[in-house]
Parts: sequence; C-alpha cells; structure tokens
Amino acid sequence: MKTYINPEESSWPKVLERPQFNLQELNRKVGDILNDIQANGMEAIRRYTEQFDGVMVPELLVSSHEIDEAAAQIDIRLKEAIQQAADNIRTFHSIQHPEIRKTETTPGVVCWQKPVAIEKVGLYIPGGSAPLFSTVLMLAIPARIAGCREIVLCTPPDKSGKIHPAILYAAQLVGVTKIFKAGGVQAIGAMAYGIGPVPKVDKIFGPGNQYVMAAKQLVSLSHVAIDMPAGPSEVAVMADESAVPAFIASDLLSQAEHGPDSQVVLVTNSRKLVIEVEQALEEQLSQLSRAAIARRALENSVAIVLDSQADMIRLINEYAPEHLIISMKNYAEVAEKIINAGSVFLGNYTPESAGDYASGTNHTLPTHGWARSFSGVNLDSFMKKITFQEISRDGLLNLGPAIEIMAAAEELDAHKNAVTLRLKSIEDSGKQ
Amino acid sequence: MKTYINPEESSWPKVLERPQFNLQELNRKVGDILNDIQANGMEAIRRYTEQFDGVMVPELLVSSHEIDEAAAQIDIRLKEAIQQAADNIRTFHSIQHPEIRKTETTPGVVCWQKPVAIEKVGLYIPGGSAPLFSTVLMLAIPARIAGCREIVLCTPPDKSGKIHPAILYAAQLVGVTKIFKAGGVQAIGAMAYGIGPVPKVDKIFGPGNQYVMAAKQLVSLSHVAIDMPAGPSEVAVMADESAVPAFIASDLLSQAEHGPDSQVVLVTNSRKLVIEVEQALEEQLSQLSRAAIARRALENSVAIVLDSQADMIRLINEYAPEHLIISMKNYAEVAEKIINAGSVFLGNYTPESAGDYASGTNHTLPTHGWARSFSGVNLDSFMKKITFQEISRDGLLNLGPAIEIMAAAEELDAHKNAVTLRLKSIEDSGKQ
Repeated sequence: MKTYINPEESSWPKVLERPQFNLQELNRKVGDILNDIQANGMEAIRRYTEQFDGVMVPELLVSSHEIDEAAAQIDIRLKEAIQQAADNIRTFHSIQHPEIRKTETTPGVVCWQKPVAIEKVGLYIPGGSAPLFSTVLMLAIPARIAGCREIVLCTPPDKSGKIHPAILYAAQLVGVTKIFKAGGVQAIGAMAYGIGPVPKVDKIFGPGNQYVMAAKQLVSLSHVAIDMPAGPSEVAVMADESAVPAFIASDLLSQAEHGPDSQVVLVTNSRKLVIEVEQALEEQLSQLSRAAIARRALENSVAIVLDSQADMIRLINEYAPEHLIISMKNYAEVAEKIINAGSVFLGNYTPESAGDYASGTNHTLPTHGWARSFSGVNLDSFMKKITFQEISRDGLLNLGPAIEIMAAAEELDAHKNAVTLRLKSIEDSGKQ
Repeated sequence: MKTYINPEESSWPKVLERPQFNLQELNRKVGDILNDIQANGMEAIRRYTEQFDGVMVPELLVSSHEIDEAAAQIDIRLKEAIQQAADNIRTFHSIQHPEIRKTETTPGVVCWQKPVAIEKVGLYIPGGSAPLFSTVLMLAIPARIAGCREIVLCTPPDKSGKIHPAILYAAQLVGVTKIFKAGGVQAIGAMAYGIGPVPKVDKIFGPGNQYVMAAKQLVSLSHVAIDMPAGPSEVAVMADESAVPAFIASDLLSQAEHGPDSQVVLVTNSRKLVIEVEQALEEQLSQLSRAAIARRALENSVAIVLDSQADMIRLINEYAPEHLIISMKNYAEVAEKIINAGSVFLGNYTPESAGDYASGTNHTLPTHGWARSFSGVNLDSFMKKITFQEISRDGLLNLGPAIEIMAAAEELDAHKNAVTLRLKSIEDSGKQ
C-alpha cells in the first residue's frame, strides 16, 4: 500500500483517483454486439455463447429436472447457511415496505403515492471460477418481497453447458421464475429486447465484468431500466488505535481478493496502525489461495494518515466508498457524519463479509463514487411509486383559481381551460 | 383522433406505438458538443450560448440584483398562486420522508437504512416561449426538503441575455442556491463536469428538448446521475358514460397543446362518448391560442373503444402512460388495478392541470413507457439510502459460521478469514 501522511486537501482527488476506462472503445464494441442480437435474435445469442462461453447450448431455459438435480448436490450445511442468510435478507428487506400516506394538501384535494412492483425483472449472475449464489439471494429475495410477477435469471453456462448447482439451488429456493443459460452481453441483450424464450424485462439487475456493465448502460438508454452503473468493488476502512490490525488486514484482503482492480483504502489517525496493518497483511497473504490477485490489488491501494478526525470524515465523504468499515472508539458518532457511502460496517466485530453474505443488508452497492447519488439495491429498486389524486367539487373551488393564474402565466390556455370549464359547471349546478 | 373499435390484443402495441427517434445520430451530435465543453470549458459554453441562444453572456451567474428586480415585476395574484402551489408541493413531499427502522435480523446483528440528501443537485429549466416556473417549484422544493446543500439551476437566457422574471422569482422563493444563464447541451455539460462558476453536481433533474435529454443520458454514463430518461409528454384518459365529454376534451387538449409530438389516448367502453368528445374538441380548439400545435398532436392521437373494462385496464397497463385520468363511475376500483402509470387523476373534478401546477404532486413524470420501471420525481429522487450494520460479539458468534460456509463455497478465502479471525479472538478472550 502506498502511504500518505497528512496529504493536502487539494491533493485528495489525485490520491483517491479510481482507475478510468476507455468507455468509447468499449461502448462501440458492446454496441455492435447488441445491434447484432437485436437484428439476429436467437441465432446471434447462440453464436456469441459458443464464441465467449465455448459451448453450444441447444436449450437456454434450465429444466426443472436440472434444478432438482442441483439441489441434490448441495451439502446440507451449505443449505442451512443459505437458509439463514435468506431469512435475514428477507427480514431486512421486508421492513422496507413503504406505507401509503394520504394527505389533504388543500381541503378537498387528496394526494398519495402508491408503491407498485415492477412487473418483470431480469437478474444477471456472472459466471467464472466462483459461483456467486449469494448475489442470487440479494436480488431475487427483494424482487419477491416487492411482488414482481416475473423474475428472470441469466447466467453463463460452463464449458459443459451446465450452471453451478449452488446458483440453481439458490434460485429455486427464493422464487426465481425462469433461469436461462446465457451470459455476458448476449444475456443483457436477450433480457432487454426479449429474444427467443427470454422475456423482455422492465429492469435489469446485477454485477458483471466491464462488457456486461457497458451493455447494461447502453440498453438503459432506450430499452430497459438498470439497477445502477458500476465499477470495480472497493472498501475504505476508517480506523484509530482502538482497531485490531489483524481484523483490518482481513477486511482489506476480503476486498483485494475480488480482483486486481479492486480498490482498498485505509484512513487512520495512527501511523503505528498503518505499520501493524502492513505486517498483518503480509502474514495473512501467505495463507490465501487468491494471494496473487490480492497482491496486485494492494499495489494500487492507499493508506492515508490524517491527524484530524474531521479531515478523515471529509476525505471519506469525498471518496464516497462502496463499503466503509469504521473501526474507531467513537464509531457511532463518526457514522452520523457519513453522507456518502454504500454500506457502513460499525465496530470491530462487523466485517464486510457479514454484509456480503448473511446479515441481511444488500451487497449490490454503488461503486466508483456513485454512492454520492445512488442507493444500493433495496426494496425500492424493485418498485416504482405511482401518484394518485382525487379532487372534490369543493377542492376544485379551493384550488382552481391558483391553477388558472399559473397556467395563464405559462401561456398554456388549454391547461387553464380544463379548470375553467369545470368551475363553470360547478357554478351552474349551484344555480339550479 | 384515429378511432379503433375493439382492436385485437395482438394489435395493441401497434395501435399504441410511440414515435421513435434516431438516437444514434442525435447521440453523436450531442456527444461531440459535450466533448468540446469538457475540453474547452467556459470558452465552449460561451460559444454555444451565442450559437444556440443568440446572445453573448458575459456573466453566467444571475446576480441578486437581477433576482430582486424580477420579484418586483411579478403580479401579486401570481405570487399568491405560486405560494399556494408551493405550500401544497411542500406538504405532499414532506410526508414522503422515510423513517429509519432498525432491525435485529439475528440476535446481536442490527441493520438499518438511513436516507441522506444528495449533496449537490442541478435543475434544468427549459426556455422557449412559455416560462416554466412551475417546474422550478416541482424540482427545488423536494430538493430543499431532502436537505440538498447546493441546488443549482440552469436555464437559457433570452436574446437580450435575461431570464424570465417568473423563473427567477420562483427560484429564490423556494431556495435555489445559484442560478446560471445557460441552456441546452451546454447547461448539462456545465453541471456534469463543473465548468467555470457552475459547480459539478451529483445529479441532474428536469425536462428539455431531445438535445437536452440526449445530453443528460450521455453524461449519466460516466459523470452524474439523472432523474429519468424522457420522451414527449402524454396523457391517457379512461372514461365511461359517466364522464363529461367537455371535461375529457379539455384534458386531452391540455396535453395536446404541449407540442405536436404530445401523445393523447382515449380509452372508453362508450362509442357515444368518442363522438361527443370529438365534437367538444372541435368547439374548444377554436378558442385556443395554441390550436395549431394541438391539432397536429391530435392527428397522431387515438381513441380506443373496448367493450370490456378488464381489457381497458390491461391496455392501459401495457401502455404505461405518464398521466392517466380515470373518469369512470367505479374509478376507485379501477385505480386499484393500475400497475403502470406515472400519475393518476380520479373522477370528474381532477384535471391533469391540477397536478401540473398546484395540488402538490410532482409533474416530472416518466414518459415513453418508462412508468413501467420509474417513479416520477419525488423526495426519494433527492436522497440515497445508506445501509448501516453493527454486530456484537454474540452476533458474530450467531452469524459467523454461516458466513464462513458461504464464503468457502464461493471460494473467497479472505472473506471467510475476516470472520474466522474474529471468532477465534472472541474464543481466545473467553478462555482468559
């Protein structure tokens, strides 16, 4: 880790700079594939699956037989762990149901918002070496709680045309309605346009590599909503001398093992802690299977010493980390001042991996500074709010004149007339 | 209006087709302007303002003197109307404040979401013939309620370099922090990148023509969040024989006068009503200042007769209109079944223009079918929710083993280790 001692505030953006991508070239490549899929449908999906996943898939839809087979392969202890995580995720997302509050803004004018599930959602689960069944839970459980009618899941097949049993098991457990063997840009295209057996969905969720992310953003320009833009995963740790160096090191490594482009930031007021954490990192790295990946991520990572706690807080809010761990004596007080972060982990016994898997919070979070404006995935992500209003005759008598004056000032006669006609009719009926 | 009697369900998408735009060409043009602004800063902003707005603007920031001058020009009756509307908008958006609900998902594992204001927001208000001061209220009031620290407003100057006094008056009334004379793509670029005196914002809101919309979508790919994608405004009216034809006609015309590409749809189970509405449209059109625009919009509009009420509801949910007026005897029952719409107006005395101006609901709503997945602008739009969690030693003893099993199954050793180390330390301290 590169260490900075009390860097000047003007240098913070440089110190905390995230890797930039050449989006233009990426978007061009991905756009070409999407156009091909839109024009050629299933033929293109099959062709790209053969090209990128190295397998011919005769049938995209996973059969109930395949699902049953998968369930039989999962160890009972893993099933129990998944059940415990699913229960917590369900508990945490269920309490997010917003109430409907009707309000009479003017006598006779009643307005309210009603949350309604998005009908059809698509979940993307990446393939690769590790089966991310935890992401299946994080996306499908709130979709079910919201009441989405169709919950489609796409994930790439392996070289033998199969999907990892843990993904299939988790998907059936939490109520995914259809599972398809499709990955990468072709999966996003299939869900955005509705290709072959894959239904067109209203919103696409889930992580993926830069091609998947670019595809999600491109289809969001005209075809379908997406959960959020995304970049590589990242963690920031705020720590003081009350922190345990070995715990901090283990949290930094949890992030670093995700990939060589993972971002890891340590912010502390203790020079001593930085040295101890560096030592703990070396000790723990030697035990890790993904040590090579983690080492590369750590090369790009920074430790920043700031003597002032207020500066520490300002720097974190400027960085807007996806994950933030606060291992400080006064963590509750510091947490109150955090205004830009995806998910915050408090104290010495709250590792990021708790939120990644099982505490109940969602692990699909805004990266790359998007925490300034985006929430992580939550129940809201699977619903929209429709506004309703009902105005009585008296209500229109109370409100109508203001509408008429404002519409006239905006030179929109017909808007005014819609009120004038009704007011006149109320007046006429009063005379009878 | 083109009339369809009981069209087959398979033909609905065709009957309800919205105009499509050539996005590729538009995005290329707008992308070039944005690149120019990013590279050349204020020089480019001034150049485009001269080119598109036909005026040299030496100082983008509106002075407090200009604002005071504007306030003096507004008629007292308009001021009172704006105040009434602002009060209602404030009332309706204030009750949307979500509560913080902490939950213990497992004994010792406490999780919650905290809504936090987006720090810096940018509001775009279009120029043109009519001054859209109502949109200033709709965007700035919820931004203030949310607690946004910086509320920037950009709007194009007229040929004499001025901004309409009603826009300035509304902006200062509701707490906009800075007003800039900048319009079109150059305004979006200035707020996305932070150019000259215009601060870089975290999220951009507001309507605009197709160039503004394209610019918002393009900057949203990498620089800043936006409220929602957008297309031309639209209204659907569901009506039965209890509806008043003159009222319906006035509502259809309110939408049609917005522009020739406005979408107007009437869905009814009464053939008679269609004929009466057509007659009322002719009568009212002759009185309107914007009749020419409204006539062109009506040419592209449709009346659909469906004998079955269930079909009417299904068709509307498939169309997902921005505005929906339900003028039917059983409107409350029908409203319960609406799952895709931006804002819904119930009964004979609730014209769309009430929601456009003064009832309190927001008029920035999802168009072009985006109501399937997007809410209109509301208090949520100006906030993000940060998740927090705090786990005690006992909590980690309860939850830790499940995390370890799941992390191992996803082959993420360091994730597992972050728990294992802590559990071991708890165990060791217990032995002492």
